[in-house]
Amino acid sequence: MSGSLNDDDKKMSRSGLINFNSIGLFLDYYELTMAKADLDHKNFNIITENYYVRKIPQGAYLVSAGLEQVIQFIENFKIAKEDTEWLNSTSGKDFDEKFYKYLQDFKFGGDVYAAPEGTVIFPNEPIINITGRSLDIQLFETYLLNVMNYQTLIATKASRVVRSAKGKDVIDFGARRAHGRDAAILGARAAFIGGVTGTSLVMAGRIWDIPYVGTMAHKFVQDRESELNAFREYAESFPHNSILLIDTYDTLKGARNACIIGKELRKKGFELKGVRLDSGNLLDLSEKVRKILDDGGLTQTKIFASNDLDEFVIEKLLQENAPIDGFGVGTRLITGANYNSITHEGNVSALNGIYKIVERIEGDTAIPKMKMTDDISKATLPGRKQVYRRSESGRFIEDTITIWDEKPDSKYDWHPLLIPIIKNGKPIFDFPSLDEIKEYTVDQIRMLPDGVKKNYGAQEYPVKLSNQINELINNILQSDKDNSQ
Amino acid sequence: MSGSLNDDDKKMSRSGLINFNSIGLFLDYYELTMAKADLDHKNFNIITENYYVRKIPQGAYLVSAGLEQVIQFIENFKIAKEDTEWLNSTSGKDFDEKFYKYLQDFKFGGDVYAAPEGTVIFPNEPIINITGRSLDIQLFETYLLNVMNYQTLIATKASRVVRSAKGKDVIDFGARRAHGRDAAILGARAAFIGGVTGTSLVMAGRIWDIPYVGTMAHKFVQDRESELNAFREYAESFPHNSILLIDTYDTLKGARNACIIGKELRKKGFELKGVRLDSGNLLDLSEKVRKILDDGGLTQTKIFASNDLDEFVIEKLLQENAPIDGFGVGTRLITGANYNSITHEGNVSALNGIYKIVERIEGDTAIPKMKMTDDISKATLPGRKQVYRRSESGRFIEDTITIWDEKPDSKYDWHPLLIPIIKNGKPIFDFPSLDEIKEYTVDQIRMLPDGVKKNYGAQEYPVKLSNQINELINNILQSDKDNSQ
Repeated sequence: MSGSLNDDDKKMSRSGLINFNSIGLFLDYYELTMAKADLDHKNFNIITENYYVRKIPQGAYLVSAGLEQVIQFIENFKIAKEDTEWLNSTSGKDFDEKFYKYLQDFKFGGDVYAAPEGTVIFPNEPIINITGRSLDIQLFETYLLNVMNYQTLIATKASRVVRSAKGKDVIDFGARRAHGRDAAILGARAAFIGGVTGTSLVMAGRIWDIPYVGTMAHKFVQDRESELNAFREYAESFPHNSILLIDTYDTLKGARNACIIGKELRKKGFELKGVRLDSGNLLDLSEKVRKILDDGGLTQTKIFASNDLDEFVIEKLLQENAPIDGFGVGTRLITGANYNSITHEGNVSALNGIYKIVERIEGDTAIPKMKMTDDISKATLPGRKQVYRRSESGRFIEDTITIWDEKPDSKYDWHPLLIPIIKNGKPIFDFPSLDEIKEYTVDQIRMLPDGVKKNYGAQEYPVKLSNQINELINNILQSDKDNSQ
Repeated sequence: MSGSLNDDDKKMSRSGLINFNSIGLFLDYYELTMAKADLDHKNFNIITENYYVRKIPQGAYLVSAGLEQVIQFIENFKIAKEDTEWLNSTSGKDFDEKFYKYLQDFKFGGDVYAAPEGTVIFPNEPIINITGRSLDIQLFETYLLNVMNYQTLIATKASRVVRSAKGKDVIDFGARRAHGRDAAILGARAAFIGGVTGTSLVMAGRIWDIPYVGTMAHKFVQDRESELNAFREYAESFPHNSILLIDTYDTLKGARNACIIGKELRKKGFELKGVRLDSGNLLDLSEKVRKILDDGGLTQTKIFASNDLDEFVIEKLLQENAPIDGFGVGTRLITGANYNSITHEGNVSALNGIYKIVERIEGDTAIPKMKMTDDISKATLPGRKQVYRRSESGRFIEDTITIWDEKPDSKYDWHPLLIPIIKNGKPIFDFPSLDEIKEYTVDQIRMLPDGVKKNYGAQEYPVKLSNQINELINNILQSDKDNSQ
């Protein structure tokens, strides 16, 4: 049965999504059953759902990423007839023709407001507001969460790593440890948004125009009679662009072999670009290798390092003045490892962002919604909301979360974070290039107070709730208790 | 530039891969530069590379998964002319026409031996042996590692969770926290191999024929005047298949509302299938809810639980006799969280499997290769290897890693784990269905000694090195030192 998909003409869009006729199948089954119950009971209410994060798993800020993919999903959402037939044959008769027709004809007619990618965001702030028929917009939940949670996790991690590297190059080396192909490709995208210089993954270069780079593997050295011979062959092929991996046998001998090659290259008019360390004590080795290279006259040859790096290790290496010029960061970047690699404390490698109903229109009245259960940590701020931020002297000062048409304290200049992306089903946002997003992110991180950015003991950024939100919370707590009767 | 990809007809195969003309671009750049240097220097040596795992990040065994995707990648590897043109325009003239032609005409002519998916595997055991031209087989490195590391991580995690659930249903709820679409789809596949009953992700059902299931979200309750009304509408739409989420407001009131609906359904000839808990103290709540349901006569209505579950939490709940009938496991399953959620100790959410050269043919002689650097933890076992396993009374007793044509201790019956998958470029393995792989995995886990399976204090499974391997290691240590000169 599953084989039938092989026979179809399925396309992949720039988004990395399956762009075939049934992109909409990327949802959790309960979204279909709830939609069917909505259709059965003519629940065509307009609601607003918010994407937001309750708690930041590591550090004190997030860099939002993934919006472009969310919008491509919403614009292209559909489930083709062949797939509703498949649903019919496999779902135990949960659905009917009316519902299948609804899925086949699906068209989003609502509004999306969102913080542009690269925006710095804090807990409980809405990152995306989707307003539309309750029936329809629940179908976006799984993919929206999937792609926003992952890319925001990685863009945030990348910004932490890049900041710790203090201007030295950081390259994404993560593809081999990413959780599947999408994770590598979308992860390279998010890491670039977060500030990395390039990626090792050629396909990410192809899809996103991210600079791609590489050195050599141990295999190349082992597959020659000697390390020196391997270095020489590589340098002959890439005289302008050789980074030699020197730790296959003995790192210091490797450095001396690199000196021999560097001198040979110089005779031909080239400089040896660099050497790479991938094991051992990087502080000690980088110091010794730097000395060997300098003594050999290769003062311009750079030292690159890899091997289970992250922001904590890099910060420590640079505090100790390790003479390392660039970092290849793999596993802990591309999995968004939410823990401190030095203290081994932390959280699961995921961002627990959620997509929750916050308002329901009944007739002409907007009824704010708030989930308030036994578990207080799972509460949701009620109402369709906006986030206002104010800055002074090029630094963010504070945010206020307000009800949509409420204005924050008029003493100050504020600007709203959520801007229109789709209106009445029509895309109206001109998506920036990845380079533009990256520049915007650099600016955002620059404006963030220094204390909020720290790897250790990061300070909380001030986020206030408006008066109207506080009032709503008090009102709802009472009425929800009544509703549960 | 990146836009050009949109215009092509790109297909996705059953594997979840991008099946367009340049699937081969999913590689790290250094694989291309090394191949170019190989081609320049006519290095057409035949080598063997091994995929294996040095250290298991959690527990004492691995369940191998991902082989089918690796083989699809190898069979379909190519880089089209439009993409070599792109490489030429973006790579700073690292390559030439001869190399582009090589990529366009790529065809693998070697051998692949591997442990079938679902096989239980231990540290340092080769899981995949690829033999072919050094030039060619390095190009498989990134995707092989990506898909094997991820699926093996998830199949292993799933088998741990499922074993802890002691026969109760475990459902993959992970799509929203998976690292992109592939992670959700391939993760559902791997989790099914590892033993889960089904998935919430409809697309995983579509692609892999995995049973898909669902309940309802808080949104459905909040989008109605009352919880009771929401339950009633859902039950009207799915009288045969309703699982009511009872923790939106007050879990115990929710359970009493479920009783009302259960009685209404019974009058129509249906039974309320279940209720779901998604917050709070699951032991306490499940006991109280069970009592409310039983007192209401709904003894057949099941209790399902979700909320940051994993093997440790489930084991604890069942040790305390929580009356829970099934578990929805999300984040910690689909990210393969390699830590103990109760003690908060553990590792990054990745499997650090590697792909290393182990043998090189020179003329008629096989030269075993071993990486032996300053960092002993990064050593590689030399030689093209086989793994032999022996069993007694339906339990695995021990493994011996041997050189390819060496036989282990003849006192016992052994069987080889690595079987032929591709010979001289031709696929000769008939890939089993996912159901067959799952059955095989169940059998493998059953045969594993109990001590090896424990969540706490798991025992190491005995894996020996053959005499020939031990001899090789000693020989190579000396000669590698010489080679580094």
